[in-house]
Amino acid sequence: MSSNYRNFRNNVPWLILFLEAVFIVLFYFLFSDDSASRPIISDPAFQDVSHMLIFGFGFFLMSLKRYGFSSTGFNLLIVVLGVQCSILIENLLIFLLKVANEDSLERITKSTVDMTAVVISTGAVLGKTNPVQLILMTVVEMIVFRMSRWINNTFLKITDNISMMHVLLFGAYFGLAVSSRFSEPSPRSEKNASTPKSDLLSMLGTLFLWVFWPRFNYVLAVDKGKAIYNTYFALAVSAVTAFVLSVLTTKDGKFRMTHIRSAVLAGGVTVGYAAHSIEYPWIAMILGLLASVITVLGSYCLQTCLNPTLKIHDTSGVHFTFGLPGVLGGLAQVVLLVIKNWTDLPRLGYLVMIHVGAFCQTISVALLTGFIVGLILNCKLLKTIPVSKYFEDQFYWEFPHLAVGF
Amino acid sequence: MSSNYRNFRNNVPWLILFLEAVFIVLFYFLFSDDSASRPIISDPAFQDVSHMLIFGFGFFLMSLKRYGFSSTGFNLLIVVLGVQCSILIENLLIFLLKVANEDSLERITKSTVDMTAVVISTGAVLGKTNPVQLILMTVVEMIVFRMSRWINNTFLKITDNISMMHVLLFGAYFGLAVSSRFSEPSPRSEKNASTPKSDLLSMLGTLFLWVFWPRFNYVLAVDKGKAIYNTYFALAVSAVTAFVLSVLTTKDGKFRMTHIRSAVLAGGVTVGYAAHSIEYPWIAMILGLLASVITVLGSYCLQTCLNPTLKIHDTSGVHFTFGLPGVLGGLAQVVLLVIKNWTDLPRLGYLVMIHVGAFCQTISVALLTGFIVGLILNCKLLKTIPVSKYFEDQFYWEFPHLAVGF
Amino acid sequence: MSSNYRNFRNNVPWLILFLEAVFIVLFYFLFSDDSASRPIISDPAFQDVSHMLIFGFGFFLMSLKRYGFSSTGFNLLIVVLGVQCSILIENLLIFLLKVANEDSLERITKSTVDMTAVVISTGAVLGKTNPVQLILMTVVEMIVFRMSRWINNTFLKITDNISMMHVLLFGAYFGLAVSSRFSEPSPRSEKNASTPKSDLLSMLGTLFLWVFWPRFNYVLAVDKGKAIYNTYFALAVSAVTAFVLSVLTTKDGKFRMTHIRSAVLAGGVTVGYAAHSIEYPWIAMILGLLASVITVLGSYCLQTCLNPTLKIHDTSGVHFTFGLPGVLGGLAQVVLLVIKNWTDLPRLGYLVMIHVGAFCQTISVALLTGFIVGLILNCKLLKTIPVSKYFEDQFYWEFPHLAVGF
Repeated sequence: MSSNYRNFRNNVPWLILFLEAVFIVLFYFLFSDDSASRPIISDPAFQDVSHMLIFGFGFFLMSLKRYGFSSTGFNLLIVVLGVQCSILIENLLIFLLKVANEDSLERITKSTVDMTAVVISTGAVLGKTNPVQLILMTVVEMIVFRMSRWINNTFLKITDNISMMHVLLFGAYFGLAVSSRFSEPSPRSEKNASTPKSDLLSMLGTLFLWVFWPRFNYVLAVDKGKAIYNTYFALAVSAVTAFVLSVLTTKDGKFRMTHIRSAVLAGGVTVGYAAHSIEYPWIAMILGLLASVITVLGSYCLQTCLNPTLKIHDTSGVHFTFGLPGVLGGLAQVVLLVIKNWTDLPRLGYLVMIHVGAFCQTISVALLTGFIVGLILNCKLLKTIPVSKYFEDQFYWEFPHLAVGF
Repeated sequence: MSSNYRNFRNNVPWLILFLEAVFIVLFYFLFSDDSASRPIISDPAFQDVSHMLIFGFGFFLMSLKRYGFSSTGFNLLIVVLGVQCSILIENLLIFLLKVANEDSLERITKSTVDMTAVVISTGAVLGKTNPVQLILMTVVEMIVFRMSRWINNTFLKITDNISMMHVLLFGAYFGLAVSSRFSEPSPRSEKNASTPKSDLLSMLGTLFLWVFWPRFNYVLAVDKGKAIYNTYFALAVSAVTAFVLSVLTTKDGKFRMTHIRSAVLAGGVTVGYAAHSIEYPWIAMILGLLASVITVLGSYCLQTCLNPTLKIHDTSGVHFTFGLPGVLGGLAQVVLLVIKNWTDLPRLGYLVMIHVGAFCQTISVALLTGFIVGLILNCKLLKTIPVSKYFEDQFYWEFPHLAVGF
Repeated sequence: MSSNYRNFRNNVPWLILFLEAVFIVLFYFLFSDDSASRPIISDPAFQDVSHMLIFGFGFFLMSLKRYGFSSTGFNLLIVVLGVQCSILIENLLIFLLKVANEDSLERITKSTVDMTAVVISTGAVLGKTNPVQLILMTVVEMIVFRMSRWINNTFLKITDNISMMHVLLFGAYFGLAVSSRFSEPSPRSEKNASTPKSDLLSMLGTLFLWVFWPRFNYVLAVDKGKAIYNTYFALAVSAVTAFVLSVLTTKDGKFRMTHIRSAVLAGGVTVGYAAHSIEYPWIAMILGLLASVITVLGSYCLQTCLNPTLKIHDTSGVHFTFGLPGVLGGLAQVVLLVIKNWTDLPRLGYLVMIHVGAFCQTISVALLTGFIVGLILNCKLLKTIPVSKYFEDQFYWEFPHLAVGF
């Protein structure tokens, strides 16, 4: 029990309580609800997105064998803090900039979608951060992502729905930049591994996310029907391709669980940008196929070449699970725009410019601020976990039971 | 294999079959459905509540390491019996008292909500009762709770929606009173413990309940939109507070899974009474914070002081998970009423009187009948489990497989 | 590593890729969507059915102790392939026969329901087939089932909704016929068994299916409200009966998990045919009771008498879980028709004839084609798994982790 750890014990709760108190006070001043008069129809979208984030991602991230409590527990903690933070920022913007007021439920739903960025970033540093670092990261990332969206909305005149589609991309690259500042775990560490049981629970989360992903793109889309079925087809093809590529790229032609877990979702990520505008499902299917290819190849290239060179350790592989398919999705969106509008060149130029601009702006803000946040999180004051304690539930949780059979 | 146990084997199935036959006959005479003409819109509320009760609570209660089959299995058994029983009572009331007839689906939904009381009571005696005792308890509790609600509706003129909010409170105190009549397990019994695996499955159930809780309050509420977002905020703050308090109250400043499990739901329980009428989310947030505080402190006080004194053994901690936050919710409702109506004193007095009356009536009926039921369940005829067989799946279930690795 | 296995490794991915390419090309030519103009209301039916199939059945089939990865993984693979295949057949029919065009989302939902047949068939051969065999089976079964439905629709003038209710029956008998051509596993093989952990995960899937089953019958039904509550009551009674019969039929009067798993769903399967037309819930309840009886007795008779005689090895017991209750449901439907229409004899004769005809046509097509598919799947070219490798994840999946503690 080092003295650093004692500091951690003494500071965490007060920090969080202080934060929560600030949130409540700000809610007192900022939260206005003009929706009282409107009838609320029972739209389960809010609940579904919340379900995805808390239940789906909580279990999706549970592949580390000794980190199950922290994966689900800390995920819940940062989601609830992040959603409150995001709603406050939204209300602040409404208050300061007179942005149009929305339904409260709508606002919570959007905040939950925004929060996906943080959950994905967490995947990259999973097991290497303590709760204080996670909470700081959550608050900063929510603010930065909202700013990035605001820039896209205001200067590039992109609608809110489209600017929110950058959420997965932002989360992946922010997380990657943060994780580049953390020391790598010892390559021989056996804690940084999965067991069949943890893989199975992670598969549970993956299947859950797979089933709910059309709903995720549905929330963001304008033409909701198209968004659902295009996403479904893209996911279907990328699931098929994931199995194919896993066999082709592993020794002995066996399936590898990490390939399946990452690549089955790739289609949904890629098609997110264009799901509402793709006219024929075969386009979504080809995107799903490409997304799965880029994910499996990416997982091979990144893990053997890029990550060791850049000294990045990406615990859950968010770069190839959400980052690369997101980039592909951005490219696909531009290509589809070009095909659709090539007769009207001036308008095409404008459309391509704002989409590419928003895309570059999002990634560069994510990388830059992620890098800075990574530096801050690794200052002496906050850094309390020795590398030998990475990926270890027992560092944070009481284990009254013997650890046998876990 | 004692002769008592043989009696159990011989009687259980016939008792249950008889009960089921009675139910079918009563359904033949009583069930009337006037809703045939009304169009049914696809309202998922019924399914969501059913999902919470069978899946969510089934896994929520799965923290005992050797009681997973019984936790989920018996939970399903009593839920389906209880819902049938509750629908029959409802129909009997419609038949006898000419209560207004409702849509069939609506009636099943309400019966499922009523059934939550029994599921919570089960939590208090989990692992100490055999199925016969559970079934008797279910039937009696459903009847008593419906009577208690009917008294509230008829004499205190409380609407059905509000009187149903007492369901969690009733369940907790009924269960507690029942469990006070059961002998305590040996404190050194290692079966009355969890493993990381059972804790993880229990966390699965908890996250599930957390996500669906706004829907639970939604079903009961009049202003459904407000109910959802107030419940969400209360749950969010109580989740945050749960982590904070867990660190503050445990040695070494680690998180304790039982704290998290109980306290993350506390906000939803507390805010249930007033979710539809709270005007600003910050009030719901403060209630969530207080609920979490009372749960964690309660878990400490009850387990070290009150329970040993009163010789109560509350397996799943329903007293501090549902009981205390429920009491807090009742208080909060009255305080909010006072604040809202203090200009109109006569009306205020009346409102406070009926709410406090309903509250006291519910708790005292729960405690009294729970105590009586506990006495009945422990008569020689029904009591077949020796204390040494508490918390043991193998007493009820075939284990063809070796128990290794469970 | 046999040379057969190398063939498998070399062929599988290209076969699947080729299939997927064909699908995409056919989608290019066939998929037409006239629903663009219609507003899509957020109907969660599509997602719920998909959830049942991928998550629910994925875990329901997870009772084999060393086959968890394959159960969930291959299930996802064949579901996505099968749904695409089914949509293509549908579009081909629209194109060739000018069948009325439906909403795209509606079409995906129906294809997913159709796919249930394949998932159930898979249960019968679980652990004995490699992915290539599964994929071939999927494609052939989808085509045959769609043909069988088309015959029912065209020649027997049965509406689409009713002909789809044969899906469970078709799946069960097709799977049974296929599995009759596979060699039986060694009776002493310890891999063909469950552990408490795999039973618990399978129970998770079962509870999930139980909760969602009303939704399944809802999708198919015309009078949706009735379908939901009749299914619920049938499921409730069959859950109760399952517990009763399990105690009565096992030694020592204990519950057996396989009984519970099979019999709790029986009511939902049986009532499927008539859920929308049953007027009083007590009829549904009696059907649920009979369904549960036939399932538990069937599981005893089939496993001790019929299966050894016919040399059928039905891994997940689909015969008594879905087959027998389905037959009962078909009978019940006819009996209910007779009772309802006995005053109008000519019409009665016609109705009975088409229902019995559709029923017999479905079962005989399922048995016949299943048998042929079983023969094809066991030709030298495709048969790559030695009996000793049945029920073994490690034959298909990489296990970087030691298998200890699985």
